[in-house]
Amino acid sequence: MKTKFHQLWGGSKMENNKRYEAGIQAMEALFSEEVRNGMAGIQNISPDFWEMIVSFGFGDLYGRNKLSHSQREVITLTALITQGAFDQLRVHLQAALNVGLTKEEIIELIIHCAGYVGFPKAVQAMGIAGEIFKETR
Amino acid sequence: MKTKFHQLWGGSKMENNKRYEAGIQAMEALFSEEVRNGMAGIQNISPDFWEMIVSFGFGDLYGRNKLSHSQREVITLTALITQGAFDQLRVHLQAALNVGLTKEEIIELIIHCAGYVGFPKAVQAMGIAGEIFKETR
Amino acid sequence: MKTKFHQLWGGSKMENNKRYEAGIQAMEALFSEEVRNGMAGIQNISPDFWEMIVSFGFGDLYGRNKLSHSQREVITLTALITQGAFDQLRVHLQAALNVGLTKEEIIELIIHCAGYVGFPKAVQAMGIAGEIFKETR
Amino acid sequence: MKTKFHQLWGGSKMENNKRYEAGIQAMEALFSEEVRNGMAGIQNISPDFWEMIVSFGFGDLYGRNKLSHSQREVITLTALITQGAFDQLRVHLQAALNVGLTKEEIIELIIHCAGYVGFPKAVQAMGIAGEIFKETR
Amino acid sequence: MKTKFHQLWGGSKMENNKRYEAGIQAMEALFSEEVRNGMAGIQNISPDFWEMIVSFGFGDLYGRNKLSHSQREVITLTALITQGAFDQLRVHLQAALNVGLTKEEIIELIIHCAGYVGFPKAVQAMGIAGEIFKETR
Amino acid sequence: MKTKFHQLWGGSKMENNKRYEAGIQAMEALFSEEVRNGMAGIQNISPDFWEMIVSFGFGDLYGRNKLSHSQREVITLTALITQGAFDQLRVHLQAALNVGLTKEEIIELIIHCAGYVGFPKAVQAMGIAGEIFKETR
Repeated sequence: MKTKFHQLWGGSKMENNKRYEAGIQAMEALFSEEVRNGMAGIQNISPDFWEMIVSFGFGDLYGRNKLSHSQREVITLTALITQGAFDQLRVHLQAALNVGLTKEEIIELIIHCAGYVGFPKAVQAMGIAGEIFKETR
Repeated sequence: MKTKFHQLWGGSKMENNKRYEAGIQAMEALFSEEVRNGMAGIQNISPDFWEMIVSFGFGDLYGRNKLSHSQREVITLTALITQGAFDQLRVHLQAALNVGLTKEEIIELIIHCAGYVGFPKAVQAMGIAGEIFKETR
Repeated sequence: MKTKFHQLWGGSKMENNKRYEAGIQAMEALFSEEVRNGMAGIQNISPDFWEMIVSFGFGDLYGRNKLSHSQREVITLTALITQGAFDQLRVHLQAALNVGLTKEEIIELIIHCAGYVGFPKAVQAMGIAGEIFKETR
Repeated sequence: MKTKFHQLWGGSKMENNKRYEAGIQAMEALFSEEVRNGMAGIQNISPDFWEMIVSFGFGDLYGRNKLSHSQREVITLTALITQGAFDQLRVHLQAALNVGLTKEEIIELIIHCAGYVGFPKAVQAMGIAGEIFKETR
Repeated sequence: MKTKFHQLWGGSKMENNKRYEAGIQAMEALFSEEVRNGMAGIQNISPDFWEMIVSFGFGDLYGRNKLSHSQREVITLTALITQGAFDQLRVHLQAALNVGLTKEEIIELIIHCAGYVGFPKAVQAMGIAGEIFKETR
Repeated sequence: MKTKFHQLWGGSKMENNKRYEAGIQAMEALFSEEVRNGMAGIQNISPDFWEMIVSFGFGDLYGRNKLSHSQREVITLTALITQGAFDQLRVHLQAALNVGLTKEEIIELIIHCAGYVGFPKAVQAMGIAGEIFKETR
């Protein structure tokens, strides 16, 4: 039974060091060197978790070519606003600008969220966006 | 003091009947007649809430021209998956297809969500997407 | 140290069997006999959990006299809608009607929630309210 | 078909400038001038979002006469505690006191929430309430 | 009917002052004196809520002998990470170390959470864990 | 700069086909053949997502040896209850029993959750546990 189960389901294709490479590349496209070095602090706490963040979180996800980085950031920003993850939002608002989303599009995204996740989270997100926009003017 | 407060802040511009009209138009672009008639059941419970759904939820939001309907559905789908609103997801997966998102893009959106909201919600969303894709083949 | 800590903090006052009694009384005010018997199914799975539900969930909370049962149901309904706990919402919509909230007030509560938790949850809540209103007409 | 759809569903009644006026009035009843001026910072980021906050968030919701402002704040506070929106909670605790909820009622609301959304959020809310109560003594 | 309902359902067994005692004992096992004194600030805002926290939150839950304190902290940490309650997480990370969870087990718990609640909350939790680990080295 | 960034951060170690193998092994330990075949339906919708579920969700997480499968299920069950993911809970309650958690421990976990995520989700989880316990008696 086990054998059949194995045969039925194909194995993964991308080599593992390539997953990590793809993750590093995505992170370089998304984040400033300062932000990346801040993130790397996770390595001191858990090298294994760091490896997952890079290989899975950035390599497996942002490394896929079916959506552009800016389309992925639309999804990321929305997911962060919806769950109230405002510290992470700050970093990804910068990333969104880095990969080409305009301030106007980000504002529009937050306005749209007001209807779907309620005004409290949208208002808080808009305030943070205002701060990030000032810094990156 | 009140007067100054009033003068400082400008009033709204779009006429109210236009908000409702814009909402109806957006709903016609997004949903099949069957779905729209189902939604209209809300009118029997609360005509005022119905008016808000149309004028604000669809008129004020989808009626804005700074994002396309398909870009708005990317935000909507992500917000629904993140909060686990799977009944609403079903309806908006159909809407997403109606306004031009491809199945491949929707699958990619759900995969991206796995990293940001966890696998349980992404897996459930993918199962529902599979059902909707079959119905709309 | 331990002694001082004990002396500083007073002990609880209400006797424990009274907590349970107060819980049963609150449940009888809130729920129909049919609903209460359904709830009691929990006893077969875990008598201890059942005791907590009655003594803490209903006795300690609804048994307090600083808010009326109907004021408490306003809080309960809002908390359930906000977390998307729609199965529990169904039961507490009946309870809300039993302790004197009107259909108009419940509709108004749901409309208010639309702004604070987003339309998807409010729309789902309104649909369920419509069903409960029909059954209890 | 479109025509029939339009005829079936009535249009909205309140004029749009009245929605904005109603929103400003509600905000003046709820918030101190200092808080209102802080909120108005949103205008610099997005005038359109500001208009929605005033016209929909305050005009359409708090401007309705079926629940009092204090009843609406009970719903608002509960929704904010349930979703862990503690920055917004701070502002609405002040509003709640401004429109007539007593400290005792607010404490009672938070205690009730402990059972419905868990102790962690209730404890955090109670700590914030303690701070606001001191400031507004 | 009422009588039968009462007879069917047994009453609670543990005396109330024992619930409070059990809660104090659990808190002494979990938290440093400094943390406990900080918590006791709740007493000044609401003595009743304080009593519930001790008697129910710690006495009724941690006082049960079917799971060890360290097993309970695994559940507590996971619940806090999943709902993004990061202020409470800080206190319970210390508690987890106090009752015998190792840093390695806590790191492993957070890594596991990444898959179930998404990377944003897991990354934030890992950062906080890193801070707590430094303080308690 | 890129080069230094690359050198600083080590690459991943486990080969990719081993990740998939580890995932399949974990799934065989956790789930009945029937459940696994149900899950495999995801393959028809998105083979890539399926590969991630197996390699990351089960291989990278359950394949790690620092926590036992039963300890991981404690975390999984808690995360699912906290986010109200009750369909996934059903499957993982079976898995928890398969890897050695007792019914008594699961009941205890749910009781503990009542205090941390509120009674509504705990009550719903307990009802589902009751159903699963009956099926697997």
